[in-house]
Amino acid sequence: MLHRTYGQNCSAARALEVIGERWTLLILRDAFLGIRRFDEFQRDLGVSRGVLTARLQWLCDEGILERRIYQERPARFEYRLTQKGRDLWPAMMALMKWGDRYESEDGAPRLVLHRGCGGEVTDHSTCAKCGAELTIHDVETRPGPGARAAA
Amino acid sequence: MLHRTYGQNCSAARALEVIGERWTLLILRDAFLGIRRFDEFQRDLGVSRGVLTARLQWLCDEGILERRIYQERPARFEYRLTQKGRDLWPAMMALMKWGDRYESEDGAPRLVLHRGCGGEVTDHSTCAKCGAELTIHDVETRPGPGARAAA
Repeated sequence: MLHRTYGQNCSAARALEVIGERWTLLILRDAFLGIRRFDEFQRDLGVSRGVLTARLQWLCDEGILERRIYQERPARFEYRLTQKGRDLWPAMMALMKWGDRYESEDGAPRLVLHRGCGGEVTDHSTCAKCGAELTIHDVETRPGPGARAAA
Repeated sequence: MLHRTYGQNCSAARALEVIGERWTLLILRDAFLGIRRFDEFQRDLGVSRGVLTARLQWLCDEGILERRIYQERPARFEYRLTQKGRDLWPAMMALMKWGDRYESEDGAPRLVLHRGCGGEVTDHSTCAKCGAELTIHDVETRPGPGARAAA
Protein backbone atom coordinates (compact mmCIF):
# COMPACT_ATOMS: atom_id res chain seq x y z
CA MET A 1 0.00 0.00 0.00
CA LEU A 2 1.31 3.46 -0.79
CA HIS A 3 1.91 5.83 2.07
CA ARG A 4 0.22 9.15 2.06
CA THR A 5 2.42 12.13 1.48
CA TYR A 6 1.18 15.51 0.36
CA GLY A 7 -2.29 16.85 -0.49
CA GLN A 8 -3.32 17.60 -4.05
CA ASN A 9 0.17 17.71 -5.48
CA CYS A 10 -0.56 14.65 -7.59
CA SER A 11 0.89 13.83 -10.98
CA ALA A 12 -1.92 11.43 -11.88
CA ALA A 13 -4.45 14.22 -11.31
CA ARG A 14 -2.36 16.59 -13.42
CA ALA A 15 -2.25 14.02 -16.20
CA LEU A 16 -6.02 13.67 -16.15
CA GLU A 17 -6.43 17.43 -16.16
CA VAL A 18 -4.71 17.33 -19.56
CA ILE A 19 -6.28 14.23 -21.11
CA GLY A 20 -9.29 13.37 -18.95
CA GLU A 21 -11.95 15.14 -20.97
CA ARG A 22 -13.94 12.59 -22.93
CA TRP A 23 -13.41 13.84 -26.47
CA THR A 24 -9.78 14.57 -25.77
CA LEU A 25 -9.20 10.96 -24.80
CA LEU A 26 -11.03 9.68 -27.87
CA ILE A 27 -8.98 11.95 -30.14
CA LEU A 28 -5.84 10.57 -28.55
CA ARG A 29 -7.09 7.03 -28.99
CA ASP A 30 -7.69 7.79 -32.69
CA ALA A 31 -4.22 9.33 -32.99
CA PHE A 32 -2.74 6.11 -31.58
CA LEU A 33 -4.72 4.24 -34.26
CA GLY A 34 -3.01 6.31 -36.94
CA ILE A 35 -5.66 8.93 -37.66
CA ARG A 36 -4.13 12.31 -38.54
CA ARG A 37 -6.57 14.47 -40.46
CA PHE A 38 -9.37 16.67 -39.24
CA ASP A 39 -12.01 15.07 -41.46
CA GLU A 40 -10.97 11.57 -40.41
CA PHE A 41 -11.24 12.46 -36.72
CA GLN A 42 -14.56 14.08 -37.39
CA ARG A 43 -15.94 11.11 -39.28
CA ASP A 44 -14.69 8.60 -36.76
CA LEU A 45 -15.89 10.42 -33.66
CA GLY A 46 -19.07 12.04 -34.94
CA VAL A 47 -18.17 15.09 -32.87
CA SER A 48 -19.10 18.63 -33.93
CA ARG A 49 -16.46 20.50 -35.91
CA GLY A 50 -16.36 23.24 -33.29
CA VAL A 51 -15.67 20.86 -30.44
CA LEU A 52 -13.09 18.97 -32.49
CA THR A 53 -11.30 22.19 -33.44
CA ALA A 54 -11.13 23.26 -29.80
CA ARG A 55 -9.89 19.89 -28.56
CA LEU A 56 -7.23 19.57 -31.26
CA GLN A 57 -6.06 23.08 -30.44
CA TRP A 58 -5.86 22.12 -26.77
CA LEU A 59 -3.80 19.04 -27.54
CA CYS A 60 -1.46 21.13 -29.72
CA ASP A 61 -1.16 23.80 -27.01
CA GLU A 62 -0.28 21.06 -24.53
CA GLY A 63 2.38 19.70 -26.87
CA ILE A 64 0.70 16.31 -27.26
CA LEU A 65 -0.13 16.73 -30.95
CA GLU A 66 1.60 18.88 -33.52
CA ARG A 67 -0.03 20.42 -36.54
CA ARG A 68 1.91 19.92 -39.77
CA ILE A 69 1.16 21.11 -43.26
CA TYR A 70 0.95 18.24 -45.73
CA GLN A 71 -0.36 20.09 -48.79
CA GLU A 72 0.34 23.66 -49.91
CA ARG A 73 -2.56 24.72 -52.18
CA PRO A 74 -5.00 24.63 -50.66
CA ALA A 75 -3.22 24.44 -47.33
CA ARG A 76 -4.02 21.16 -45.55
CA PHE A 77 -2.86 20.15 -42.10
CA GLU A 78 -2.51 16.94 -40.20
CA TYR A 79 -2.11 16.27 -36.48
CA ARG A 80 0.66 13.98 -35.33
CA LEU A 81 1.59 12.69 -31.91
CA THR A 82 4.69 14.24 -30.38
CA GLN A 83 6.99 12.30 -28.07
CA LYS A 84 4.96 13.67 -25.15
CA GLY A 85 1.85 12.28 -26.81
CA ARG A 86 3.37 8.89 -27.61
CA ASP A 87 4.45 8.66 -23.98
CA LEU A 88 0.78 8.44 -23.01
CA TRP A 89 0.58 5.01 -24.62
CA PRO A 90 1.24 2.97 -21.43
CA ALA A 91 -1.50 4.91 -19.62
CA MET A 92 -3.86 4.31 -22.54
CA MET A 93 -3.06 0.58 -22.54
CA ALA A 94 -3.50 0.29 -18.75
CA LEU A 95 -6.90 2.01 -18.94
CA MET A 96 -7.88 -0.10 -21.93
CA LYS A 97 -6.97 -3.39 -20.27
CA TRP A 98 -8.88 -2.46 -17.14
CA GLY A 99 -11.89 -1.49 -19.25
CA ASP A 100 -11.60 -4.78 -21.15
CA ARG A 101 -11.61 -6.72 -17.90
CA TYR A 102 -14.35 -4.93 -16.03
CA GLU A 103 -16.44 -2.80 -18.37
CA SER A 104 -16.76 -4.91 -21.53
CA GLU A 105 -19.45 -7.54 -21.10
CA ASP A 106 -18.94 -8.94 -24.59
CA GLY A 107 -15.15 -9.14 -24.23
CA ALA A 108 -12.40 -6.83 -25.44
CA PRO A 109 -13.46 -4.68 -28.40
CA ARG A 110 -9.90 -4.72 -29.64
CA LEU A 111 -6.92 -6.97 -29.10
CA VAL A 112 -3.48 -5.38 -28.95
CA LEU A 113 -0.84 -7.95 -29.84
CA HIS A 114 2.94 -8.06 -29.80
CA ARG A 115 3.77 -7.97 -33.50
CA GLY A 116 5.54 -11.13 -34.68
CA CYS A 117 5.02 -12.82 -31.30
CA GLY A 118 1.26 -12.73 -30.98
CA GLY A 119 1.17 -12.26 -27.19
CA GLU A 120 -1.45 -9.88 -25.84
CA VAL A 121 -0.36 -6.63 -24.23
CA THR A 122 -0.77 -6.63 -20.43
CA ASP A 123 -1.87 -3.74 -18.23
CA HIS A 124 1.88 -3.22 -17.61
CA SER A 125 2.37 -2.76 -21.40
CA THR A 126 4.44 -5.90 -21.50
CA CYS A 127 3.85 -8.96 -23.66
CA ALA A 128 1.85 -11.71 -21.92
CA LYS A 129 3.69 -14.36 -23.93
CA CYS A 130 7.37 -13.36 -24.05
CA GLY A 131 7.48 -10.71 -21.31
CA ALA A 132 9.02 -7.94 -23.44
CA GLU A 133 8.31 -4.30 -22.50
CA LEU A 134 6.31 -2.99 -25.42
CA THR A 135 5.98 0.40 -27.05
CA ILE A 136 3.40 1.52 -29.56
CA HIS A 137 5.83 0.58 -32.33
CA ASP A 138 5.85 -3.09 -31.29
CA VAL A 139 2.15 -3.85 -31.52
CA GLU A 140 -0.66 -4.48 -33.95
CA THR A 141 -4.36 -4.68 -33.27
CA ARG A 142 -7.19 -6.92 -34.28
CA PRO A 143 -10.92 -6.74 -33.58
CA GLY A 144 -11.65 -8.61 -30.33
CA PRO A 145 -14.70 -10.62 -29.27
CA GLY A 146 -16.47 -7.43 -28.16
CA ALA A 147 -15.96 -5.60 -31.45
CA ARG A 148 -18.97 -4.19 -33.22
CA ALA A 149 -19.33 -2.07 -36.32
CA ALA A 150 -19.46 1.67 -35.68
CA ALA A 151 -22.94 3.13 -35.97
CA MET B 1 1.11 2.31 -34.69
CA LEU B 2 -2.23 0.77 -33.82
CA HIS B 3 -4.66 0.13 -36.63
CA ARG B 4 -8.06 1.60 -36.48
CA THR B 5 -10.87 -0.80 -35.87
CA TYR B 6 -14.28 0.22 -34.58
CA GLY B 7 -15.79 3.56 -33.61
CA GLN B 8 -16.50 4.43 -30.01
CA ASN B 9 -16.37 0.90 -28.67
CA CYS B 10 -13.29 1.74 -26.63
CA SER B 11 -12.27 0.24 -23.32
CA ALA B 12 -10.03 3.17 -22.41
CA ALA B 13 -12.98 5.53 -22.81
CA ARG B 14 -15.14 3.23 -20.69
CA ALA B 15 -12.48 3.20 -17.99
CA LEU B 16 -12.36 6.99 -17.94
CA GLU B 17 -16.13 7.15 -17.78
CA VAL B 18 -15.81 5.34 -14.46
CA ILE B 19 -12.77 7.05 -12.96
CA GLY B 20 -12.17 10.19 -15.05
CA GLU B 21 -14.03 12.67 -12.87
CA ARG B 22 -11.52 14.76 -10.94
CA TRP B 23 -12.64 14.04 -7.37
CA THR B 24 -13.16 10.39 -8.16
CA LEU B 25 -9.55 10.06 -9.27
CA LEU B 26 -8.29 11.86 -6.17
CA ILE B 27 -10.36 9.62 -3.91
CA LEU B 28 -8.84 6.62 -5.64
CA ARG B 29 -5.36 8.07 -5.27
CA ASP B 30 -6.03 8.51 -1.54
CA ALA B 31 -7.35 4.95 -1.30
CA PHE B 32 -4.10 3.70 -2.86
CA LEU B 33 -2.26 5.70 -0.19
CA GLY B 34 -4.13 3.80 2.50
CA ILE B 35 -6.89 6.25 3.40
CA ARG B 36 -10.13 4.49 4.31
CA ARG B 37 -12.37 6.74 6.39
CA PHE B 38 -14.77 9.45 5.33
CA ASP B 39 -13.26 12.11 7.59
CA GLU B 40 -9.75 11.31 6.40
CA PHE B 41 -10.77 11.63 2.76
CA GLN B 42 -12.57 14.84 3.58
CA ARG B 43 -9.61 16.34 5.41
CA ASP B 44 -7.11 15.32 2.78
CA LEU B 45 -9.12 16.48 -0.22
CA GLY B 46 -10.86 19.52 1.20
CA VAL B 47 -13.93 18.51 -0.78
CA SER B 48 -17.48 19.19 0.43
CA ARG B 49 -19.12 16.38 2.38
CA GLY B 50 -21.96 16.22 -0.14
CA VAL B 51 -19.63 15.74 -3.10
CA LEU B 52 -17.52 13.23 -1.20
CA THR B 53 -20.60 11.22 -0.20
CA ALA B 54 -21.78 11.10 -3.81
CA ARG B 55 -18.38 10.10 -5.20
CA LEU B 56 -17.82 7.38 -2.59
CA GLN B 57 -21.28 6.04 -3.35
CA TRP B 58 -20.43 6.00 -7.06
CA LEU B 59 -17.19 4.11 -6.44
CA CYS B 60 -19.08 1.58 -4.28
CA ASP B 61 -21.81 1.21 -6.92
CA GLU B 62 -19.12 0.56 -9.51
CA GLY B 63 -17.53 -2.08 -7.30
CA ILE B 64 -14.22 -0.22 -6.96
CA LEU B 65 -14.57 0.47 -3.24
CA GLU B 66 -16.51 -1.46 -0.66
CA ARG B 67 -18.06 -0.02 2.47
CA ARG B 68 -17.32 -2.01 5.61
CA ILE B 69 -18.44 -1.44 9.15
CA TYR B 70 -15.49 -1.15 11.53
CA GLN B 71 -17.29 -0.04 14.70
CA GLU B 72 -20.77 -1.02 15.93
CA ARG B 73 -21.92 1.76 18.32
CA PRO B 74 -22.03 4.24 16.88
CA ALA B 75 -21.86 2.58 13.50
CA ARG B 76 -18.72 3.64 11.63
CA PHE B 77 -17.75 2.65 8.12
CA GLU B 78 -14.61 2.56 6.09
CA TYR B 79 -14.04 2.30 2.36
CA ARG B 80 -11.64 -0.27 1.03
CA LEU B 81 -10.41 -1.04 -2.45
CA THR B 82 -11.82 -4.16 -4.05
CA GLN B 83 -9.82 -6.27 -6.49
CA LYS B 84 -11.41 -4.24 -9.29
CA GLY B 85 -10.16 -1.10 -7.58
CA ARG B 86 -6.66 -2.45 -6.95
CA ASP B 87 -6.47 -3.40 -10.61
CA LEU B 88 -6.52 0.30 -11.47
CA TRP B 89 -3.06 0.66 -9.96
CA PRO B 90 -1.09 0.22 -13.22
CA ALA B 91 -3.23 2.89 -14.89
CA MET B 92 -2.69 5.20 -11.91
CA MET B 93 1.08 4.63 -12.06
CA ALA B 94 1.22 5.21 -15.82
CA LEU B 95 -0.71 8.48 -15.47
CA MET B 96 1.45 9.49 -12.52
CA LYS B 97 4.73 8.84 -14.31
CA TRP B 98 3.58 10.81 -17.34
CA GLY B 99 2.52 13.67 -15.11
CA ASP B 100 5.88 13.52 -13.34
CA ARG B 101 7.70 13.75 -16.63
CA TYR B 102 5.68 16.43 -18.34
CA GLU B 103 3.52 18.31 -15.88
CA SER B 104 5.70 18.64 -12.77
CA GLU B 105 8.16 21.50 -13.19
CA ASP B 106 9.71 20.96 -9.77
CA GLY B 107 10.11 17.23 -10.27
CA ALA B 108 8.02 14.31 -9.07
CA PRO B 109 5.90 15.13 -6.00
CA ARG B 110 6.19 11.54 -4.90
CA LEU B 111 8.60 8.73 -5.61
CA VAL B 112 7.22 5.21 -5.83
CA LEU B 113 9.97 2.71 -5.11
CA HIS B 114 10.31 -1.06 -5.27
CA ARG B 115 10.42 -2.00 -1.60
CA GLY B 116 13.69 -3.62 -0.59
CA CYS B 117 15.25 -2.90 -3.99
CA GLY B 118 14.90 0.87 -4.20
CA GLY B 119 14.32 1.05 -7.96
CA GLU B 120 11.72 3.55 -9.15
CA VAL B 121 8.50 2.31 -10.69
CA THR B 122 8.33 2.85 -14.46
CA ASP B 123 5.32 3.83 -16.55
CA HIS B 124 5.00 0.10 -17.26
CA SER B 125 4.69 -0.55 -13.47
CA THR B 126 7.96 -2.43 -13.56
CA CYS B 127 11.06 -1.73 -11.46
CA ALA B 128 13.60 0.49 -13.23
CA LYS B 129 16.42 -1.24 -11.37
CA CYS B 130 15.66 -4.97 -11.34
CA GLY B 131 12.93 -5.15 -14.01
CA ALA B 132 10.34 -6.94 -11.83
CA GLU B 133 6.65 -6.44 -12.62
CA LEU B 134 5.30 -4.60 -9.60
CA THR B 135 1.96 -4.52 -7.86
CA ILE B 136 0.76 -2.10 -5.23
CA HIS B 137 1.95 -4.55 -2.57
CA ASP B 138 5.57 -4.31 -3.73
CA VAL B 139 6.12 -0.59 -3.39
CA GLU B 140 6.66 2.18 -0.88
CA THR B 141 6.61 5.91 -1.45
CA ARG B 142 8.71 8.84 -0.43
CA PRO B 143 8.27 12.56 -0.99
CA GLY B 144 10.00 13.50 -4.27
CA PRO B 145 11.78 16.70 -5.28
CA GLY B 146 8.46 18.33 -6.21
CA ALA B 147 6.79 17.57 -2.88
CA ARG B 148 5.28 20.42 -0.95
CA ALA B 149 3.32 20.52 2.26
CA ALA B 150 -0.44 20.37 1.84
CA ALA B 151 -2.17 23.71 2.32
